[in-house]
Amino acid sequence: MLQNYQPFEPLIKRIRDDGKCLPGGILKVDSFINHQIDPMLLKQMADEFVRRFAGTHLDKVLTIEASGIAPAIMVGLELKVPVVFAKKKKPSTMSEMYVAEVFSFTKNKTYTVCCSKEFIRPDEKLLFIDDFLANGNAAKGMLELAEQAGAQIAGMGFIVEKAFQSGGAILREKGLQVESLAIIESLDNCTIKFKEN
Amino acid sequence: MLQNYQPFEPLIKRIRDDGKCLPGGILKVDSFINHQIDPMLLKQMADEFVRRFAGTHLDKVLTIEASGIAPAIMVGLELKVPVVFAKKKKPSTMSEMYVAEVFSFTKNKTYTVCCSKEFIRPDEKLLFIDDFLANGNAAKGMLELAEQAGAQIAGMGFIVEKAFQSGGAILREKGLQVESLAIIESLDNCTIKFKEN
Repeated sequence: MLQNYQPFEPLIKRIRDDGKCLPGGILKVDSFINHQIDPMLLKQMADEFVRRFAGTHLDKVLTIEASGIAPAIMVGLELKVPVVFAKKKKPSTMSEMYVAEVFSFTKNKTYTVCCSKEFIRPDEKLLFIDDFLANGNAAKGMLELAEQAGAQIAGMGFIVEKAFQSGGAILREKGLQVESLAIIESLDNCTIKFKEN
Repeated sequence: MLQNYQPFEPLIKRIRDDGKCLPGGILKVDSFINHQIDPMLLKQMADEFVRRFAGTHLDKVLTIEASGIAPAIMVGLELKVPVVFAKKKKPSTMSEMYVAEVFSFTKNKTYTVCCSKEFIRPDEKLLFIDDFLANGNAAKGMLELAEQAGAQIAGMGFIVEKAFQSGGAILREKGLQVESLAIIESLDNCTIKFKEN
């Protein structure tokens, strides 16, 4: 269950100023998060993630290419731990790897994510970082990769969570610490409605 | 012509320690650059790029998903400018964009890169950052996007350049300032031979 949600005000303000709501429940934040990126905002967000997970031992940050890389690398820099990004295509030079299937509602298709066995080791504690949490399918794929490796996802951090999709509820029911910096309750009528704390 | 090449020693050392040379001229650096990333090394490299381009006015950092994002974002943070990453697939929510074709020798196929017209503006000075420079086709695609926008690529920075492929020579002949932190002269017989300064 979602408790003690803290909206991260610099992000909320930026979404209000520069985010765009498109028909079909799409929130467009490509001027500062996932096409053009504001590194200074990203740094502030990384500091905030680090603060929220301060009580948790973390060996590595885990993410998925492509738009998870920027927030993940900034968190990894703050934590001083390696960052691993799962790939959506199997590199020709990768032999031993963990593989999971992820269904994307946005694109209405299933894709494969993979990670070399070298980079997720048994017993490692991982922090999964991504830009969006909607149905949580990418996150579930990461849980699967971690399980295959005998590692543990010790927490998950998302820039934006869409509370009208089921991902957040599903992940929190598993007992995971899920931290979202902005939670959107609704995008109906092309209006961004934020969850209040 | 390549003049005053300065090998960036922390990177050279790391490649010697952890890089792997595979048959077919492949340099595998996926334990610290393009699958697992060492954010502290990345930060050092970003500082070095910023030092090398210190005399150049730069409005934005430009890169291509996915493995260019991490170094680009770190450089953007140091420079305090936005980072734009060109996408390899046209997002469904993007309408007005610049498009270029890029031929990948590694994958032996042509792919499309695109960038929203919102994020490269006329007269902007861009710094292109990427992980590898081999044949320079991705870089040429970026020059094309910039040209379409009426913007200018004011410099290019690469983590690793393969001097036995033609990209570096082609780009420097155009008069561009091209900075590579490590230049590999040969990968013959699965041995990494670095260029000396």
